[in-house]
Formats: sequence, C-alpha cells, structure tokens
Amino acid sequence: MNDQIRISEIFGPTIQGEGPLIGRPTIFVRTAGCDFRCVWCDTLYAVLPKYRHEWHFMTANEIVERVDALAGHQPVLISLSGGNPAMQPLDSFIELARERGHSFALETQGSLHQPWFSELDWLIVSPKPPSSQMTAEWPAVEACMAAAGKHTRCALKIVVFDDADYAFARDAARRFPETPFYLQTGNPTVTAESEDADLPDLAARFRWLSEKVANDRWFGVHVLPQLHVLIWGNKRGV
Amino acid sequence: MNDQIRISEIFGPTIQGEGPLIGRPTIFVRTAGCDFRCVWCDTLYAVLPKYRHEWHFMTANEIVERVDALAGHQPVLISLSGGNPAMQPLDSFIELARERGHSFALETQGSLHQPWFSELDWLIVSPKPPSSQMTAEWPAVEACMAAAGKHTRCALKIVVFDDADYAFARDAARRFPETPFYLQTGNPTVTAESEDADLPDLAARFRWLSEKVANDRWFGVHVLPQLHVLIWGNKRGV
Repeated sequence: MNDQIRISEIFGPTIQGEGPLIGRPTIFVRTAGCDFRCVWCDTLYAVLPKYRHEWHFMTANEIVERVDALAGHQPVLISLSGGNPAMQPLDSFIELARERGHSFALETQGSLHQPWFSELDWLIVSPKPPSSQMTAEWPAVEACMAAAGKHTRCALKIVVFDDADYAFARDAARRFPETPFYLQTGNPTVTAESEDADLPDLAARFRWLSEKVANDRWFGVHVLPQLHVLIWGNKRGV
Repeated sequence: MNDQIRISEIFGPTIQGEGPLIGRPTIFVRTAGCDFRCVWCDTLYAVLPKYRHEWHFMTANEIVERVDALAGHQPVLISLSGGNPAMQPLDSFIELARERGHSFALETQGSLHQPWFSELDWLIVSPKPPSSQMTAEWPAVEACMAAAGKHTRCALKIVVFDDADYAFARDAARRFPETPFYLQTGNPTVTAESEDADLPDLAARFRWLSEKVANDRWFGVHVLPQLHVLIWGNKRGV
C-alpha cells in the first residue's frame, strides 16, 4: 500500500479521445517512465529522464484522493496511461480505487505484463509500428493478453502513419483474430513543442486510412482519429 | 419479398462516423422519405418530396445485390439510415441480407416502430432536440425500444447544438437510465448545399460539449463528433 508510484500528471474529467472507449468521460492518470522511445511520442514529458524533476512519487492513497477530488467523489473511468504504466506498481492503487467504485482502462505498448492486468476493466495494447522506430515483440504482447485473463476486456490499437505501418497492422490483426482491433491515425503535429493541431492534416490522414480500409474490404476493424486534439490541441492536460 | 423499398442512395464501404459503431467499416443504405423536417437536416435529398425524382424503388433482392457488389461479396455491417428508415418495409431485405452474413444497424428518430426492429443488431434512436424545431414523443421512443426486444442492442443518440439541446439530452438520459447514451456535436455547416466542413468550428463545438459534460461530472455518457465530415466533407456519398 505504500509503494511509490511515479506520476507525470493526473487530469480530468475530460473525454477519452482514442480506442474502444472513445467519447467516454474519464480521468487520466499518466505514469512517468517508459522503456520505449517512439520517435513521434507526444508525451515525452512523461518519458524522458530530463523531465524527471517534474515527476511526482505518489502513494496509491494520494492518487485516489486526487482522482476523487477531480471526479467530485463520483465513480469514474480512470485511464491509466504513460509513459508505460505497466512499469509501475499499480496493484494497490487499482484495489483502493475500485473500492470507491472507479473502473480502469490501461494503455500500454505491450512490452511488459503484470499480474494485476487481470484487475483492469480494459487492457488496450498498442504495439508500436515501424514509423515509431521501435520493434514490437509479439511474445510480449501475447503475454500481456494472457495476463489480462478472462475478466479484463482486451483490444489492440495500432497507430498508422504510412503504408509500412498499415502492413504491420494487417499482420497484427492476423495474429490476434479474436481481439477487437483499432487503427488510429498518426498525428505528426502533436508534439510537446507545438500546441495547435493541424486539423486539415488530421482530416486528410483519417480519410487516407479510411479509404485504404474500405478499398481492402477490411471490415473487422475500427478506424478512428485522435479526438483529444480537438479538445485541448496539443496542450498538456494539467 | 417483392415489396418496393424507397431508396435515396446506397454507398460504401466507408467508415461509420457516429454513435456506438463509430469507426466501423460499413455500407450505408439510405432510404427516402421522412416524417420529420429538422431545420438542420443534412440529408434533405432523402427527405423532401422535391427530390423524389432522384429516388429509386428497389426490391429487397436488388438492394442485397448492390450491397454485395460494393462489399466484394463479404459480410459487412449495413447502416440503415434515411430519411426515416422505419417508414420502409425492410423486413424481407434484412432477412435476405442476413442469410448472406450481413449485420444491421438502423438509425431513426424514434417516431415510428416496426416489428422487424427485433431483427436488427443495433437500433440507434435519435430523438430530435429543440434546435431541430421538431418535438420528440417519448411514448413513441419507448415503443421503438420495446420493439427492439432483447436481441437487438439499443442506444440513444442526441444531437446537441446549444444549451436547450443539452438540457433535453439530460432529461432523455434520465428517462432511459439503462440505455447507452451518446451526445453528438451538431454541425451547422453540413447542409446539402455546402461541401466543405468547417473543422475549427467542429472542434470548438466538440470542446464546448466535452467541457459541459466534464463540468457536470456526467460520466455515464459518450461524447462524439461526426467523423464522416472528415472523410467526405459534406459531399454526398455516391
């Protein structure tokens, strides 16, 4: 219960802008620290050690208190993001927050698994495509799914910037034919340095991806943009 | 089987831009004719009698043939829209298309119900808010839900342009506490006459609605824009 959890930011309520819970009001708990360095990472402030002075060590209880205050002491969907939240000892936080009625979605690249994945409501695994310059390791992704067990709902989400990413996504969907599958348009203008989203570019990328999927008659998939750039541009939540 | 169905357009595959099936590849079957005249209707060509010369009477078999050709003879999600598709004799079409493996979502304002609502996979009822200058009749909406029965999944979707619409939506959510509930940003620039979507306006409306929901701590809802304006602007599908 006294494990220290490395936190980058806690903010909300806002609207989940991605994946299977798109549109859902949620509070984000963003952990700090990551085992990846995706070239287009939009949350470098939660990844790079040079931002370490901005991070907080918090106990499970402190995080729950903060979430409760933001949620007006109502049960809410908590989105656990990062960085890679699978690096943090989140089990006691999840247990404590669940006692208060909260529910949980965790998003991770699928490089690390934890036994407490089975305590989540949703596990969204987002293996990184070639444009990230990272390498997805499928056995590790499979281990994440296995750790989720039967109770936790799983989804796969692949960011697609280009044709190579799209081919990667097609392969990923073949590997996990039973798992709900989400394609998400990459958004190169979202960086820690720029604040305004390029909406025509976002629309063009969504159109491009939608047309590829339609032309391929790939019907067992979801195609979504990142809605949160509509809400807060590229500004940090809090 | 020889019932004539009034069709405005059949197009796709494209991406469903709204509601619980947002992001899903789908083929639209848009019926012609409507019992409502919403002031901000974006498909007047499927509503007003002056467009009648553009409409087609088609049999169930003719519609299935067209859908199959567009889908490359693969099973696909068919989105039944209008106009008000509840005005058409769609039962034999649904039966025939289901034999080919297709699935169905129907969107209607909830003014009319049909026994074949129970044959759908999804029924999305979209009662019209005050800004439409129409009046939602709750007993009729309830009759639609009842007609859906236990097999068909129901959702409510309310378009929100302004504070009065938002209050209407809050009331609707209280009337149907068990039904998945979607708020959708109104998009006044989408008309049959204009082709380009005003993306900054769309973003501002989505931000406004998201902030209202967050400020009210209304957590049991989904807030979504209309994604299809990103795909095809305001142009007609086909």
